[in-house]
Amino acid sequence: AKEAAAAKKNAGKMSVNVDGRVYVDAVSFGQGAGSMATFGDAQDTVQFRTARLGAFGEGFDVFNYKIEVDFAARDSTDDQHTSFKDVYIGVKDLPWLNYVQIGHFKEPFSLEELTSSRYITFMERSTLNSAFVPARNVGVASYHVSENERMTFAFGGFRSIKDTPPYAANDNGGYAFTMRATYLPWYDEATSGRGLLHLGLGYSYRDVDDPNQRIRVRPEVAVGPRVVDTGIITNVEDYHLLDPEIAFVYGPFSIQSEYLVAFYNRSAGADPTFHGAYVQMSYFLTGESRSYNREKGAFDRVKPIENFFRVRTCDGDVETGWGAWELAYRYSWLDLDDAGVLGGTTADHTFGINWYWNPYMRLMFNYVHAQVSPANNAPNSDINVFEMRAQVDF
Amino acid sequence: AKEAAAAKKNAGKMSVNVDGRVYVDAVSFGQGAGSMATFGDAQDTVQFRTARLGAFGEGFDVFNYKIEVDFAARDSTDDQHTSFKDVYIGVKDLPWLNYVQIGHFKEPFSLEELTSSRYITFMERSTLNSAFVPARNVGVASYHVSENERMTFAFGGFRSIKDTPPYAANDNGGYAFTMRATYLPWYDEATSGRGLLHLGLGYSYRDVDDPNQRIRVRPEVAVGPRVVDTGIITNVEDYHLLDPEIAFVYGPFSIQSEYLVAFYNRSAGADPTFHGAYVQMSYFLTGESRSYNREKGAFDRVKPIENFFRVRTCDGDVETGWGAWELAYRYSWLDLDDAGVLGGTTADHTFGINWYWNPYMRLMFNYVHAQVSPANNAPNSDINVFEMRAQVDF
Amino acid sequence: AKEAAAAKKNAGKMSVNVDGRVYVDAVSFGQGAGSMATFGDAQDTVQFRTARLGAFGEGFDVFNYKIEVDFAARDSTDDQHTSFKDVYIGVKDLPWLNYVQIGHFKEPFSLEELTSSRYITFMERSTLNSAFVPARNVGVASYHVSENERMTFAFGGFRSIKDTPPYAANDNGGYAFTMRATYLPWYDEATSGRGLLHLGLGYSYRDVDDPNQRIRVRPEVAVGPRVVDTGIITNVEDYHLLDPEIAFVYGPFSIQSEYLVAFYNRSAGADPTFHGAYVQMSYFLTGESRSYNREKGAFDRVKPIENFFRVRTCDGDVETGWGAWELAYRYSWLDLDDAGVLGGTTADHTFGINWYWNPYMRLMFNYVHAQVSPANNAPNSDINVFEMRAQVDF
Repeated sequence: AKEAAAAKKNAGKMSVNVDGRVYVDAVSFGQGAGSMATFGDAQDTVQFRTARLGAFGEGFDVFNYKIEVDFAARDSTDDQHTSFKDVYIGVKDLPWLNYVQIGHFKEPFSLEELTSSRYITFMERSTLNSAFVPARNVGVASYHVSENERMTFAFGGFRSIKDTPPYAANDNGGYAFTMRATYLPWYDEATSGRGLLHLGLGYSYRDVDDPNQRIRVRPEVAVGPRVVDTGIITNVEDYHLLDPEIAFVYGPFSIQSEYLVAFYNRSAGADPTFHGAYVQMSYFLTGESRSYNREKGAFDRVKPIENFFRVRTCDGDVETGWGAWELAYRYSWLDLDDAGVLGGTTADHTFGINWYWNPYMRLMFNYVHAQVSPANNAPNSDINVFEMRAQVDF
Repeated sequence: AKEAAAAKKNAGKMSVNVDGRVYVDAVSFGQGAGSMATFGDAQDTVQFRTARLGAFGEGFDVFNYKIEVDFAARDSTDDQHTSFKDVYIGVKDLPWLNYVQIGHFKEPFSLEELTSSRYITFMERSTLNSAFVPARNVGVASYHVSENERMTFAFGGFRSIKDTPPYAANDNGGYAFTMRATYLPWYDEATSGRGLLHLGLGYSYRDVDDPNQRIRVRPEVAVGPRVVDTGIITNVEDYHLLDPEIAFVYGPFSIQSEYLVAFYNRSAGADPTFHGAYVQMSYFLTGESRSYNREKGAFDRVKPIENFFRVRTCDGDVETGWGAWELAYRYSWLDLDDAGVLGGTTADHTFGINWYWNPYMRLMFNYVHAQVSPANNAPNSDINVFEMRAQVDF
Repeated sequence: AKEAAAAKKNAGKMSVNVDGRVYVDAVSFGQGAGSMATFGDAQDTVQFRTARLGAFGEGFDVFNYKIEVDFAARDSTDDQHTSFKDVYIGVKDLPWLNYVQIGHFKEPFSLEELTSSRYITFMERSTLNSAFVPARNVGVASYHVSENERMTFAFGGFRSIKDTPPYAANDNGGYAFTMRATYLPWYDEATSGRGLLHLGLGYSYRDVDDPNQRIRVRPEVAVGPRVVDTGIITNVEDYHLLDPEIAFVYGPFSIQSEYLVAFYNRSAGADPTFHGAYVQMSYFLTGESRSYNREKGAFDRVKPIENFFRVRTCDGDVETGWGAWELAYRYSWLDLDDAGVLGGTTADHTFGINWYWNPYMRLMFNYVHAQVSPANNAPNSDINVFEMRAQVDF
């Protein structure tokens, strides 16, 4: 009776759960004299890459909500602002629209983006992501999954908004329409997805609120110099993004790739088209498999077969569990040279080792070697990045 | 026994609960050429109006605490600061003082202010509120309720403090003494308050820390131009606020009104007196009634008779619950012209529709038509505001 | 079975607990004409000294984590930044290293620093603390306790990092190695530590990332003028800190002292050596004893024998519990004059009264009388500080 009363009382309010995540990073750069001349002397950095706290819950049968803020965000002038991450209301089980989300959340676009930074294979997403992929904006979206969970479809309308004040405040547009469909031609039900083939396609139309657009990216690291940079592209009216995805998992082995093309329309001057792509492979030495969320059409949390520990037992022996170990390689490529825009091109090789202590903690080690043809046809140059991360989420 | 032990252990520490709220707003302005000339071209805005997380709890029989911060606050230069909301310690059951609060919380003044923004009828409070009503400050206050819960009385001493650094730091005063009494001549006990008549009176004496005071308000919207503005009023020593309140609830219908007068004292120059007032009416199409908190003498959470849902059932039908629907109108008026101060006057008509999905979520739609006689006898002008909000609290 | 299933499920994720603390301070200065001429007119202040929210938890047998941010921090220009406090991952039961922490936390140095600000006897730590003691930095540390819990030993490597962006980003070092050992020659097991003698020794080697170092401290208050100030000391390469500690508890009485010496090495110019010390005594009028954490080698939470309450009972009487009352005195001294550096010296007398309402709430009253020989041999001067705090943690 007591439990029933509590349940009834609970049904009368939203549930509240607290979650969060912390990534502590150490970054070191390796540069030759030419690299220093081109990109400046990149400084070693120790920093909080991410430090989030949030709350989420559900109630009244069909509703849920989430609010999550990041205390480690900083703007281009290194001034800190507490920035908004997922902040939304959701309504389930609607006819036609199924699940609808209102608020600030990720637009349905790109397998790499929609896989949480907690679960991605490398410390940073590829160059095409920071160049073009829309992350979180304010809008409304509708989400669908087929009955056999082999297909997902999502679409939404968004207003581009900054994560920190003054957000968006103008009459010039900044609207976007984004959609994504995914399909699993093969999914090994017997092993709950230790084998699968994922295909996906994303599309976004993006009206800009500022006709002056600039695209510049770092060599797959959160700090330091931007190695390619279009400078200001004037008179931009809008642009289209198209992003086919493919991923294949076969036991401990996986391969994943995306190709992204961006068509820019300008009210005056030639219309540039930019491209990017990445291919990444990973292998779990300890036998795990990348797990996949069929409702989201994206990768999910890695769960070690045996968690890490190493303790001295009562009789003086040392017992050990090794956690999960993963080796990974990614090749990514981005071309910002077109139609008179001389942004440069970069090809990055990233080698990664991930040590999963348990499902909620991991250490990551990345080495990035970026081969850059910089903006304005400056001489080719290289930059090396050594990165390390301690990660926890809860 | 286990439960008893847990209870005993719990008695040995403060309880901790997490709460929060998020309001996502879209604002659009309608202006003629004259309005644009007078007030500038007000820009459409999408923003987080409020995004709070906090913790509260109680323990040791007579104590409670609360800490709540707002991540969406921004200062006059649009720079974001995490600002403090309710941050206090409370002690119950004291003789003479009854319940005492120490910390940062709302001064006991104004029915509209003391009704949480989660429960107010319109998206923004009236112009008299932003012009004069003290909200949260640091101080100590004592709260009383009569045994029959028909009367409340509260008083407190406060130091005016900004919600963000540098808070208050000077030797020039900035102290306030504030009190409020409320009385329910009629309260329909049988229906738990579906019928009531509320009377209230608030008074505040406010010594200023800065002799240069400025009063300026927006047309009941959180962004955009301030339409009336006194400019700097020099030599201000202190001022008095007087605020009679009345509210009447009769089933789904309610009417509420406040009149506020502010008497300014200056060490040199004439002493201006400013006035403001509002009258608001609302009606629940779905039969709910505005609920009232007799301990606080303020309005409380609206609970829909039937929550919103609209789901496709197994046999293909669509079942629906409509939530609660409320129509509302407010007339507000503010006069900042007196004794040589030419701040202007504004009369605002606001029309509102509220859709309560459940007790913790609602959508709000407001249309404001402000008729302004601007500062310095500039020609009369109008401004229209269309506002929309998605709100959740937990 | 339900409970067992829940326990099993819980074992599969990290636990989450929320904690926090709030200190609301009022500060007033007493200055003569000479003091105003030397230090300026220090302004009265009301402020949040500390306002933290955080989450912590544990899971998978050997892991724990913590994340805690402070919303009340402000930088030297009074701009607010949300700053990081304890943000770390811990691993228990490792061979040789025992308990290891990775992240942002207090370096193992100084009894006064390692005693949480929730438990320290005075509102602010002594002048030697703000002058030299490293607080939280990013690093890795290992913690050990002897089997009889009479000895602790901790050591770690750290990178000096600011609590707010841009944190640390340079190639010039800023590394530190820190260690601390404590020993309890006497600990009264029968009374769980109502009598004890604590000895400790801390050492830190600190390579600086900026050759320009400046040391300046306030008179044991969080706002207002810095009364001693070395100005910029150029060409600093590194420095060593040595810090012997002693503390003695005998029932309600305690005495505690530290002496700190800092040896600076400069690449050019003379090498200055600075000193500081404090001795503090406290006495509980209500019979409590300062409690001690044997795993940390630091003082712990004070628990009143009887919590505070004062309520009118049904028959009209007033029942009272008085909480705990503590009287305290501290003498501290800091000398920043050496080898051509004329930073000045200060000797502070602090008198304190603490009223503990319950283990989680207290009111503090401090009076500081600072006798200063200011920088550059300016004439001696005094400054008086009256401080008051309402404190809660949960």
